[in-house]
Amino acid sequence: MFINSIAHYIPEQILTNEHFSKILGLTEEEIFKKSGIKQRRVTGAGENTNTMSVKVAGLLQPKIPFDLQEVDLIVGATYSPHDTVATLAHQVQHLFKIENAQVVSVSTACSSYVNAMEIVEGYFAMGKASKALVVVSEHNTIYNDESNSYSGFLWGDGAAAMSVTKERITENDVEVVEIETRGYAHFAKAMHAVNLRPLEDRIQMKDGKDVFMNASKLMTSNTQGILERNGFNLKDLTYLIPHQANMRIINKVGEMLGLHNGSVVTNIEYLGNTGSASSAIALSQTWDKLQKDNLAVVTVFGGGYSSGCMLLKK
Amino acid sequence: MFINSIAHYIPEQILTNEHFSKILGLTEEEIFKKSGIKQRRVTGAGENTNTMSVKVAGLLQPKIPFDLQEVDLIVGATYSPHDTVATLAHQVQHLFKIENAQVVSVSTACSSYVNAMEIVEGYFAMGKASKALVVVSEHNTIYNDESNSYSGFLWGDGAAAMSVTKERITENDVEVVEIETRGYAHFAKAMHAVNLRPLEDRIQMKDGKDVFMNASKLMTSNTQGILERNGFNLKDLTYLIPHQANMRIINKVGEMLGLHNGSVVTNIEYLGNTGSASSAIALSQTWDKLQKDNLAVVTVFGGGYSSGCMLLKK
Repeated sequence: MFINSIAHYIPEQILTNEHFSKILGLTEEEIFKKSGIKQRRVTGAGENTNTMSVKVAGLLQPKIPFDLQEVDLIVGATYSPHDTVATLAHQVQHLFKIENAQVVSVSTACSSYVNAMEIVEGYFAMGKASKALVVVSEHNTIYNDESNSYSGFLWGDGAAAMSVTKERITENDVEVVEIETRGYAHFAKAMHAVNLRPLEDRIQMKDGKDVFMNASKLMTSNTQGILERNGFNLKDLTYLIPHQANMRIINKVGEMLGLHNGSVVTNIEYLGNTGSASSAIALSQTWDKLQKDNLAVVTVFGGGYSSGCMLLKK
Repeated sequence: MFINSIAHYIPEQILTNEHFSKILGLTEEEIFKKSGIKQRRVTGAGENTNTMSVKVAGLLQPKIPFDLQEVDLIVGATYSPHDTVATLAHQVQHLFKIENAQVVSVSTACSSYVNAMEIVEGYFAMGKASKALVVVSEHNTIYNDESNSYSGFLWGDGAAAMSVTKERITENDVEVVEIETRGYAHFAKAMHAVNLRPLEDRIQMKDGKDVFMNASKLMTSNTQGILERNGFNLKDLTYLIPHQANMRIINKVGEMLGLHNGSVVTNIEYLGNTGSASSAIALSQTWDKLQKDNLAVVTVFGGGYSSGCMLLKK
């Protein structure tokens, strides 16, 4: 399958480390050292996962090499929902009047974007769809407790959307060579390391250390695995597009893979942890740099202990 | 694909119309007349979508014709989540130590159960899984405002789980002949008829009339369509298993299809509206009655304006 077009949306409002320094009694430098984050984007009044999804679909629309109304599958992804019944995928169908589509919303923790892509792959394999729209949107800050000194400063908001087709449509399409996802919730601390309980303590990263250890290991081995299974090695990799949960995880993965800095794509410095949207936004930000035959790997691991890996070839 | 085993779980605590009559200033008879509901089941202390999922998976385990640990795909479904990061699907993976599984959680409004089944079909089509566990769990009452006289009395809690395999495993397996899902969010009132906004007004059925009209029409035509496409007609149908949102919708569908009462499966009288779990629970309740060559259709339409239809053959 092929990604034909991609767009991202990040809200205007900036929240700096100075803001959290005042609330949390940490210096700006300490926050940066813990996370690699200097600032994050936060939704304005009335914005939520549904409105951001509509906004990013609108940014995508002129780039799609077919009419948006031809889409026959909409897959939405978020773990920070505005509405779990009138979901972001339904909102996009509604406002763009996409009349003949299967519509699915996924909420599979930090890997939701890669899970969404694999669900598209499944619909293509069944022959039930051929032109999909994938929309990922995270509104972490509305579920965040800013006074939490352990994780309150991590979160940011943002969205990404892309058109995905079964067959190649233009020569600029990027091929999705392989998608692999896996649950690691059998690991001891999986159920308590990261949580988002809408009616209880909302979003909480309670055991960053365990996430760091497992994410570093699995995002690394999954990247190696997906390259090897497809006859490539790390020297062939142009861009690594990792989940943006913490810069220390990203640096560790880059180091373990022996990648030079320029090939590891990051946005966490200025967007914060945008959850399952983070790697999709990073892919969108890398899109125009991709040259013919370039390889990129999207590798994610996070809360729920949910992982995903995707090999892309321009 | 085939359903090999199925189980359901409903909490012990009963909430009668008397309870709502006192709160809402409606008579018990008025509540029954509006909804067809006499009582509903409500979770006890500490219960939620994750705990109900574990409970129902435990009830299912002895019925599965293979080891639960052989499951290679877990698909969870809910629109009333306890935790959107450590999801119900991850909770099941965790407690049953299912080590080699892809794990997905879906949150696609009232059709989530049928969407989950179609996602399984996709993984089977890709050759990425062959033994799946589908778990649906709804905790409507925690998101409900009991003082809402329009919809506060509708909701109940419950869960269902089933094992689904690519190939037939026993002669008691029920074949999933076809699954069809579709989004109807392009309809005018789709985004405001039913909502569940965790951080705003929670679960709200604001336009039951529009839901009634569209649900009656689409659950009827989808049932006719799926039978016809597979060379059957209504006379061949043994059981219709509709989404249990309101008895008036169910009666209307039964009437439009010309079905006699015994063939339309209901549980809303004593469970209330258990959301996307309702038809899965009803299927579980019908399971032992299914005879060789019996046909059943699961047909759902609800919030988000999301529909799904599934033809089953014993």
